[in-house]
Amino acid sequence: MRQFSVSTTRREEFLDITAEVAAILRDIERESGPAEGAVLVYSPHTTAGITINEGADPDVRRDMLAHLAKLVPCDPGFRHAEGNSDAHIKTSLMGPSQLVPVTGGRLKLGTWQKIYCCEFDGPRRRTVLVQFLPSGSGAGEGG
Amino acid sequence: MRQFSVSTTRREEFLDITAEVAAILRDIERESGPAEGAVLVYSPHTTAGITINEGADPDVRRDMLAHLAKLVPCDPGFRHAEGNSDAHIKTSLMGPSQLVPVTGGRLKLGTWQKIYCCEFDGPRRRTVLVQFLPSGSGAGEGG
Amino acid sequence: MRQFSVSTTRREEFLDITAEVAAILRDIERESGPAEGAVLVYSPHTTAGITINEGADPDVRRDMLAHLAKLVPCDPGFRHAEGNSDAHIKTSLMGPSQLVPVTGGRLKLGTWQKIYCCEFDGPRRRTVLVQFLPSGSGAGEGG
Repeated sequence: MRQFSVSTTRREEFLDITAEVAAILRDIERESGPAEGAVLVYSPHTTAGITINEGADPDVRRDMLAHLAKLVPCDPGFRHAEGNSDAHIKTSLMGPSQLVPVTGGRLKLGTWQKIYCCEFDGPRRRTVLVQFLPSGSGAGEGG
Repeated sequence: MRQFSVSTTRREEFLDITAEVAAILRDIERESGPAEGAVLVYSPHTTAGITINEGADPDVRRDMLAHLAKLVPCDPGFRHAEGNSDAHIKTSLMGPSQLVPVTGGRLKLGTWQKIYCCEFDGPRRRTVLVQFLPSGSGAGEGG
Repeated sequence: MRQFSVSTTRREEFLDITAEVAAILRDIERESGPAEGAVLVYSPHTTAGITINEGADPDVRRDMLAHLAKLVPCDPGFRHAEGNSDAHIKTSLMGPSQLVPVTGGRLKLGTWQKIYCCEFDGPRRRTVLVQFLPSGSGAGEGG
């Protein structure tokens, strides 16, 4: 398993981590040849998740964050004393991880897809875990 | 890695792709014997996701789509010029992929579960990527 | 593949299943040595999902359930005759499964993370499927 860290700069932010994940895949390729399988991108945090969405127009990320804030406002009715229950809920809505197919050692993201670390309670230093899962030399190949 | 394409016929639609995924597993079985592991069903799009939910009563899908449209309406306040930010948000809420356990070469879906391609900005031609991940001959077997 | 069952005691509940998943990993380790890879924790149900979130303060779970009930109320406008469309929608929002990285035979959950079975239409007996996916002896190791 591998990992890297990122620093977020605001309370809420979608941080593009595609280059970091791609760099880890290149390391694996140097050591073991072209990877076939999928790569798990995992946030070990409870107020930061991982999603995959559009990377071309930054307004998409802004609209996503603004609408998530509308759906899950910082509600004074929340009981959790730390006051960041909204961040916990948004993290589960986005999910703590994403699994991206890999073929020929490359992420098989769609043309417009980028991988984002979704910060909902920053700014903080965040760790992202990366685990490669091979499709194996038997079943799953040949397609 | 394998893939197939589907055509959606409306702006928003949950399209049952269980048969397509099962057919790919049968291909893998013919080539490599019964598969043990899990199958990644991945949408390389940013306005179409993948979910798993009930297949028996089509009203469940209708209720899901109608309620998602209430939660994330086509808001005139969105900044993204293409005007489909709602579709991007719904895609991240459902997720771009699902991972389904496989044993004896068969999808281990529950009795009522079907795999859906969630179209949020159709009608379009959509690609679905399928990557099989084996549980290996060692760890993970024997259970 | 392995599985275990849990009993929920309310209509809506986040049930901590981390110990059950960890016990299965210990079984795998006894049989095959320390596992490297990831473990798929999968709900074969359409009104119960899986999420990962904070385990320290039970108020977080209460806030999450209360806010999900606000986002997706038991709407009399739903068409599905069983009257539990809200449970289906919440299940897709949380997701039917989570994939947790494993290294040295241990779940690589963050300090505050626990794995939850999210009951949205209980009380019921629920099954959880667990499939281990190894990172392989080649690619993915060494990091």
